[in-house]
Amino acid sequence: MKTQVVIIGAGPSGLLLGQLLHRAGISNIVLERRSPDYVLGRIRAGILEKGTVDLLREAGVHKRMDREGLVHGGVEFLFDGKRIAVPLKELTGGKTVMVYGQTEVTQDLMEARAEACAVTVYGVSNVQLFDIKSDKPYVTFEKQGESSRIDCDYIAGCDGFHGVSRQVIPKDVLREYERVYPFGWLGLLADTPPVNHELIYAHHERGFALCSQRSLTRSRYYLQVPLTDNVEAWSDERFWHELKLRLPQALGARLVTGCALEKSIAPLRSFVVEPMQYGNLFLVGDAAHIVPPTGAKGLNLAASDVNYLYRILKKVYHEGRTDFLDVYSPMALRRVWKGERFSWFMTNLLHDFSGQNAFDRKMQQADREYYLGSRAGMTTIAENYVGLPFEEVR
Amino acid sequence: MKTQVVIIGAGPSGLLLGQLLHRAGISNIVLERRSPDYVLGRIRAGILEKGTVDLLREAGVHKRMDREGLVHGGVEFLFDGKRIAVPLKELTGGKTVMVYGQTEVTQDLMEARAEACAVTVYGVSNVQLFDIKSDKPYVTFEKQGESSRIDCDYIAGCDGFHGVSRQVIPKDVLREYERVYPFGWLGLLADTPPVNHELIYAHHERGFALCSQRSLTRSRYYLQVPLTDNVEAWSDERFWHELKLRLPQALGARLVTGCALEKSIAPLRSFVVEPMQYGNLFLVGDAAHIVPPTGAKGLNLAASDVNYLYRILKKVYHEGRTDFLDVYSPMALRRVWKGERFSWFMTNLLHDFSGQNAFDRKMQQADREYYLGSRAGMTTIAENYVGLPFEEVR
Repeated sequence: MKTQVVIIGAGPSGLLLGQLLHRAGISNIVLERRSPDYVLGRIRAGILEKGTVDLLREAGVHKRMDREGLVHGGVEFLFDGKRIAVPLKELTGGKTVMVYGQTEVTQDLMEARAEACAVTVYGVSNVQLFDIKSDKPYVTFEKQGESSRIDCDYIAGCDGFHGVSRQVIPKDVLREYERVYPFGWLGLLADTPPVNHELIYAHHERGFALCSQRSLTRSRYYLQVPLTDNVEAWSDERFWHELKLRLPQALGARLVTGCALEKSIAPLRSFVVEPMQYGNLFLVGDAAHIVPPTGAKGLNLAASDVNYLYRILKKVYHEGRTDFLDVYSPMALRRVWKGERFSWFMTNLLHDFSGQNAFDRKMQQADREYYLGSRAGMTTIAENYVGLPFEEVR
Repeated sequence: MKTQVVIIGAGPSGLLLGQLLHRAGISNIVLERRSPDYVLGRIRAGILEKGTVDLLREAGVHKRMDREGLVHGGVEFLFDGKRIAVPLKELTGGKTVMVYGQTEVTQDLMEARAEACAVTVYGVSNVQLFDIKSDKPYVTFEKQGESSRIDCDYIAGCDGFHGVSRQVIPKDVLREYERVYPFGWLGLLADTPPVNHELIYAHHERGFALCSQRSLTRSRYYLQVPLTDNVEAWSDERFWHELKLRLPQALGARLVTGCALEKSIAPLRSFVVEPMQYGNLFLVGDAAHIVPPTGAKGLNLAASDVNYLYRILKKVYHEGRTDFLDVYSPMALRRVWKGERFSWFMTNLLHDFSGQNAFDRKMQQADREYYLGSRAGMTTIAENYVGLPFEEVR
């Protein structure tokens, strides 16, 4: 087989890149270890930045999103009995975010890809990358016992934190940055109406809580829990009880509980690898960086990488400007570090850090009071939440 | 002796409180351990917030300040070869800061106090506070072998971090919050023209540097140094050489060097004690809280306490509203914690923390790039630098 770009991984970033390249007349093949159903079963993010929405629109996969997605012009914060509305739209000159689940985005992209008759090979194993430093790289893989090879110009590693793409880059080339947080998030998905029309980020002495949503009838709630906790120890009943304890009484009284469709504990981690390019291999999204979910930046940073890589590959194929390839890593990383900073800031601002000394605890409280009490402070939160602007590729 | 308010400590906060009370017809006596010359010899802060300037004006000690002080509408930041101007005035709706040394403020206050024939007793020892929980507190002290006693209504503890006032409050009443930073500031005062018309806060891999000033002909420079350094190891020549290394070449070339009038190393510390009131004793300024000097908040937070205590005592003596006395500590502390937060933020933003891991170092860099790259981010720095508004006492 032969194609211009091999994309490893059929999650939202791989599929979005594939769709954008396809529409730009750049041929590509997507390889995925799992099945389509497995990919669709992963419950992840649900908040799309304005820039991500625009990119999905550019990829032509906006019809259902525009119909079913919920535009949010604000977000709420709770702490010390205070309930503070951050008017995102007003503070950012009209920008909003879109509530639309990652699962929905993935499904729309899958359908668009099927319609375009573009090739996605699911259920592959033993994916290997060769000659990535040469101008004739190729990828081999196995499927149902048969080996295949795809020759290509470029490889996009969209295969997540545990994927093969980052692993093939020599260790001495990569610099890793990491922070692990001393707690996890217990998430519960339920077909119940959200407790509030806007998202609520709550700081509480019992731990952080987030009231999120996927639609008008599907809620997603999170609780900060110790890393040592087991999901089995959290019955639905215990979850709802604990969530109510972390919300003001009036809000807790409005909470509609129900059976969990999904319940899981995820650790919180900050991770970045530099550079994001090695020869003709380009790392995209979780393959290169992880953020803690506070701030909803994971999928959006993946879309940010896709945005840059797509525009750079267009420069290459439409204008012969291969000099742009070296711009990818520094350009993508500038925005990644901003997203990492915001995710780290929000995590530090809202969680309970039990090991903290008394002064640091007071500083955390002063940060909440300042950033959510001053218009300038709120604007720093708002402009990061809706997404900082992309740099132009030119 | 008998007076309404005994003020312990004749530094700028004690003298400012005394002057304001005097003008409001509230009698007071100031006690000071040291001599006037010793007090005047302490080289400290030089940047006055708008609110501090207004308070000095209200105290009637503004004439020389208005003539000799320098109004600054901006401040500069240097990092990674970038030079960024933060237009304080533009970002805060017209607010500015005043460059006017603490020594000058103290001298003006001393002269005003002498003119008003108000009593300051210098060179006292063995100051003791009695019956501060009763409505008849009194203070005893010795001077030249003679013991004296002053009966009063209230006592203002303006005697600094090492003063006696905080010590007389039972340990179990006070909660202390503290952070010690792993470096100090080496300061040098010289009669040379400042290298730049605005202050420069410089982050450098060799350590933080600050180009400050006291007037058009007197400069104050600071270098971050290890806490283990001895001031004797820093000749003037070595100081100027190191400062140049931390500034861009073009700026370093303009630096006018000269003999140090004063040179000292100060550790950096954040410290707050809660509450700031015990019976009829009120702690003011450094007696209750210390900030690291990054952000120039030390003197300004002392003035903030003076502002509140003065207005509350006016309520007491002019309107008989003793119920306001209990408001002092929570009201003063709300602003103190904001000043502590900003001083801690600026210290974290600009210094070199050698023990930091790679991710935290990147976050520090991302903070610099974000807060000094976004208008909202810059506004958070500007509005804190010129001073957040006072609450009204009413």
